[in-house]
Amino acid sequence: MIVDIINKKRCGQELSDNELDEIFLGYLNGKVYDYQMSALLMAICINGMSDKEVFHLTKVFVESGDILDLSMISGVKVDKHSTGGVGDKTTLVISPIVAALGIPMVKFSGRGLGFTGGTIDKLESIPGFKCEKDETEIIKQVKDIGIVNCSATKNLVPLDKMVYALRDVSGTVSSLPLIAISVMSKKIASGADKILIDIKYGDGAFMKTKEEAQSLGDLMIRIGNSYGKEVRIIFSSMDAPLGYAIGNRLEVLEAISLLKENKANPTFKELCVDIASNMVSMGKNISLAEARSEVLDVITSGKAYQKFLELVKYQGGNIDKIKIDANKKDIVSPKDGVIKEIKALSFGNLAVKLGAGRSKKDDVINPNVGIYLHCKVGDKVRKGDVLCSLFYSLEEENFEFDDYFKIE
Amino acid sequence: MIVDIINKKRCGQELSDNELDEIFLGYLNGKVYDYQMSALLMAICINGMSDKEVFHLTKVFVESGDILDLSMISGVKVDKHSTGGVGDKTTLVISPIVAALGIPMVKFSGRGLGFTGGTIDKLESIPGFKCEKDETEIIKQVKDIGIVNCSATKNLVPLDKMVYALRDVSGTVSSLPLIAISVMSKKIASGADKILIDIKYGDGAFMKTKEEAQSLGDLMIRIGNSYGKEVRIIFSSMDAPLGYAIGNRLEVLEAISLLKENKANPTFKELCVDIASNMVSMGKNISLAEARSEVLDVITSGKAYQKFLELVKYQGGNIDKIKIDANKKDIVSPKDGVIKEIKALSFGNLAVKLGAGRSKKDDVINPNVGIYLHCKVGDKVRKGDVLCSLFYSLEEENFEFDDYFKIE
Repeated sequence: MIVDIINKKRCGQELSDNELDEIFLGYLNGKVYDYQMSALLMAICINGMSDKEVFHLTKVFVESGDILDLSMISGVKVDKHSTGGVGDKTTLVISPIVAALGIPMVKFSGRGLGFTGGTIDKLESIPGFKCEKDETEIIKQVKDIGIVNCSATKNLVPLDKMVYALRDVSGTVSSLPLIAISVMSKKIASGADKILIDIKYGDGAFMKTKEEAQSLGDLMIRIGNSYGKEVRIIFSSMDAPLGYAIGNRLEVLEAISLLKENKANPTFKELCVDIASNMVSMGKNISLAEARSEVLDVITSGKAYQKFLELVKYQGGNIDKIKIDANKKDIVSPKDGVIKEIKALSFGNLAVKLGAGRSKKDDVINPNVGIYLHCKVGDKVRKGDVLCSLFYSLEEENFEFDDYFKIE
Repeated sequence: MIVDIINKKRCGQELSDNELDEIFLGYLNGKVYDYQMSALLMAICINGMSDKEVFHLTKVFVESGDILDLSMISGVKVDKHSTGGVGDKTTLVISPIVAALGIPMVKFSGRGLGFTGGTIDKLESIPGFKCEKDETEIIKQVKDIGIVNCSATKNLVPLDKMVYALRDVSGTVSSLPLIAISVMSKKIASGADKILIDIKYGDGAFMKTKEEAQSLGDLMIRIGNSYGKEVRIIFSSMDAPLGYAIGNRLEVLEAISLLKENKANPTFKELCVDIASNMVSMGKNISLAEARSEVLDVITSGKAYQKFLELVKYQGGNIDKIKIDANKKDIVSPKDGVIKEIKALSFGNLAVKLGAGRSKKDDVINPNVGIYLHCKVGDKVRKGDVLCSLFYSLEEENFEFDDYFKIE
């Protein structure tokens, strides 16, 4: 009985494969109620899961929907996932880099919820850009130009969609096993041969400490290995926003600046190069140093930017029509000093308030609004220097300086 | 926000009074969803509650509905609650004893669910007996005959009704704070001045160990004291069924046998005398020894039985019409030996299967069916002795002897 399974996990006991099947497939089929699943998820959050449980539940998730067959595309398929942070537009940069180096890129992305943005929202801020593709279109596009970046196909891991939506409203998001299963089941179902995970930790990320991030990474590697798939993990700090731009269209412009002019915030560029190098190293089976050299070349030669333009054009976007249509307000430094902190979580929440993100699933976002930083941590500033610009539509947001910057 | 409150309890932190109000009153008013409450309840089951939280939540429960005003009835009102066990018909015996000694008895009882029976089901097995009363009728009856035993009035602790129904189907029943709050809020809302709690432990009870039972009792005392009410606890083992009869009408007949003829299973009689003596001691503010002497007198004099007859008649019941209308099958001992165990849980579940109890809330029970034991633990038996009789309606139930008795 369902209640007996929940009770078992409440007591901290390991669930059998059959018990996991019964309750999760029951939920998929509408036979287990939301209030039973949320109670089970809470018990999992607090009491954890064994590796045996995690491996089996990943399988249940993967097999709950369609599994993408990429065998018709030659070459090693390398996928990438980031656990989400404030101002994270790395996917926009690394996908064309990796594709320009001949590795087929089938990249599924999501929309943003809460203080972290979503790559689909960023791509759709390019006028005309279309993110909905079916399996046939995806395979044709990758064969044609070697890259596609779109929403996941409708029936990819439907159980994850249901469970994630419930976790979001029942206080059961923070569970390493549940996070690992959610991410890895989607990567496995979307046909990746090798997987790179960028795990963010710190103020502006879901993982608050390096230790938590490490445990999550280790678990994801074990899940990948249980499917015979190589998984590499990169850990990156998310105490400050990533790069200068937060907000969809502003972030696209920042990504273009890196690809087109090789101009970028150094931390942001280094993370992009690091991720891309690891993906190329896995995809081509070459050393990280060789891969890094190829990645830097493909940026300076402009080939990565050309691939980006190909992607945008193929998916209907018009790069020439991007412009920021918003009011602007500059925030200046109230004193001389050194910037000690730029608080990622505060800026992430501000972006949501400005209309760049969603606090509820059906919120409509405004592609124009956001924040552009003119400084980074460690910069010396003088009283009156412009530290950031807010792009807003209707009303100015109240800006309590000390909630966002620490200057000493 | 509701999700923040759930997250706080997930992390094992103490909830403030305001947070408890927000989520539990929100649930009462339909603003908090079942799947949010069940997640919170699971977090409470695993992470517990502080006394401060327990005291405040009891208050929220008590004030969620009407509070019965018994001030128009003179005398100290003493209430009794049992945590439920197999064959527990003590309320039928102790209420008339206590009332016969001049202590006003307003006794609310419930229906059975699962392997434990409910006093209302037992009373309703007396032909004609009515258990639904409103507040005016209750007060009039107590003034007239000093005793009433009925279902709780409709709006008594409605929050407990909602939360209990959810706990039952979400694997969140086993929580000492939630059990204590559920019991104590009902006793307090129903106007008791002093409260006796009979906590069962063992195989056939919700509390499996004496230690658990002790912790629950201590917590109930602290809750009562926070309302300035004296609370006494009695612990009784529930490894074997209580008394000889399991099943509604059979249990009424066993209670009558004790009250009318002073004939009873010794363990059952001793528990009734113990509970009644404590209630009389509290109600009259006399020593336990004095109270015990009065209790024994009122049984042997037949006054307790007269009070029982008054109660039955006042509530519409016809004692002369009680008879068992069922098929009977005797179970005999397969060997000579001593009875080491009579397994309470197995007999409780058998009673449900026979139709004496409910496995779902809307199951209809049959008042005639059940089990009558002809032996007790410690008895010497010979091969072929009748150990118990099953009373069934349609089909005989399969009876695996070793699941029910241990003879050595």
